[in-house]
Amino acid sequence: MERRGLMLVVSSPSGAGKTTLSRGLLAAEREIVMSVSMTTRPPRPGEMEGKDYFFIDEVTFNLMVNRQEFLEHAKVFDYYYGTPAKPVFAALQSGRDVLFDIDWQGTQQLAQSARDDLVSVFILPPSTAELERRLKRRAQDSAQVVARRMAKAADEMSHWAEYDYVIVNHDVEASLAQLRSILTAERLRRTRQVGMVEFVKSLREWQ
Amino acid sequence: MERRGLMLVVSSPSGAGKTTLSRGLLAAEREIVMSVSMTTRPPRPGEMEGKDYFFIDEVTFNLMVNRQEFLEHAKVFDYYYGTPAKPVFAALQSGRDVLFDIDWQGTQQLAQSARDDLVSVFILPPSTAELERRLKRRAQDSAQVVARRMAKAADEMSHWAEYDYVIVNHDVEASLAQLRSILTAERLRRTRQVGMVEFVKSLREWQ
Repeated sequence: MERRGLMLVVSSPSGAGKTTLSRGLLAAEREIVMSVSMTTRPPRPGEMEGKDYFFIDEVTFNLMVNRQEFLEHAKVFDYYYGTPAKPVFAALQSGRDVLFDIDWQGTQQLAQSARDDLVSVFILPPSTAELERRLKRRAQDSAQVVARRMAKAADEMSHWAEYDYVIVNHDVEASLAQLRSILTAERLRRTRQVGMVEFVKSLREWQ
Repeated sequence: MERRGLMLVVSSPSGAGKTTLSRGLLAAEREIVMSVSMTTRPPRPGEMEGKDYFFIDEVTFNLMVNRQEFLEHAKVFDYYYGTPAKPVFAALQSGRDVLFDIDWQGTQQLAQSARDDLVSVFILPPSTAELERRLKRRAQDSAQVVARRMAKAADEMSHWAEYDYVIVNHDVEASLAQLRSILTAERLRRTRQVGMVEFVKSLREWQ
């Protein structure tokens, strides 16, 4: 059945499990691709052009901003980050879905050009204690650094109510199954199955 | 997580597999109950009061219509059928979902009292040939009877575009998995997880 792809945004505070769930989804599902951002930040060791980011210079970035070639963009510290529109629309048109790993600000920008194509999921940690444990495990940092991360997480979490779906990540396997169910269901939405009009017509032509 | 139940309507032309899928869903999922209709039709052999139908007399039926105690009702041939509202709202309130086996006319009526609680799924047969095969297998009837059923199916199918989701039933197992995904996803909708406001508040109170 011919269908129109959808834009799946997964956001969460750092430490709630977003990256693990996104990777799991990409590994488990076909016909979904990750949106690769562009950035003016230099590559870190091990980062690959076109996989982790497209690394571009600031002149190019600003040119693209002026041409409105980004679905969303932001400045974080000294560097610019943006989601190029062209590959996203090409994927949707060909019936593939696109997964976005962006925060609530990016989601708000994206919503303006996405309309009915956007499906947004917010991942929450099961408890504050668990979030703190994950943020501590992740880096051997001072109490102050962890506290700052927790404050940032609390700030990010204040935007949960702007999302279509909410998953509380008690268990990665269960949460991944839930995320896959959301994708499966949204693909079955009547409005996305653009080949359905012709198909039902063919079914009804029997008479 | 405290949540508000949803009303899941599954409609299809006769022969598309709706009954099999509904039974499969009820067997596989917890916290979902079947809506039991009331009817003035006398019970057929083997039908059980409160399971297949609630069998009531016409005076009672009309009284309930006047009191607006039905979510939807209709006259089919000589008998009346209706969905009593009270058990449905009680189930939703307690966080259970309710499954409805009704046609497009019932769905339209139901939508008026259901608002955001309604999730509707239309099941289509994979082909006209397969639909005809299923309608023939089901009863040893004349070509004329099968033709009339096919015409009725074609009429029912003309309402597919009034539903939220569409499943083409190529294979019962795959379709059941899709139906379960729809239920799982809809339960994860932010608006249905009424306990989430307090939960996120507790997460953010850490600071």
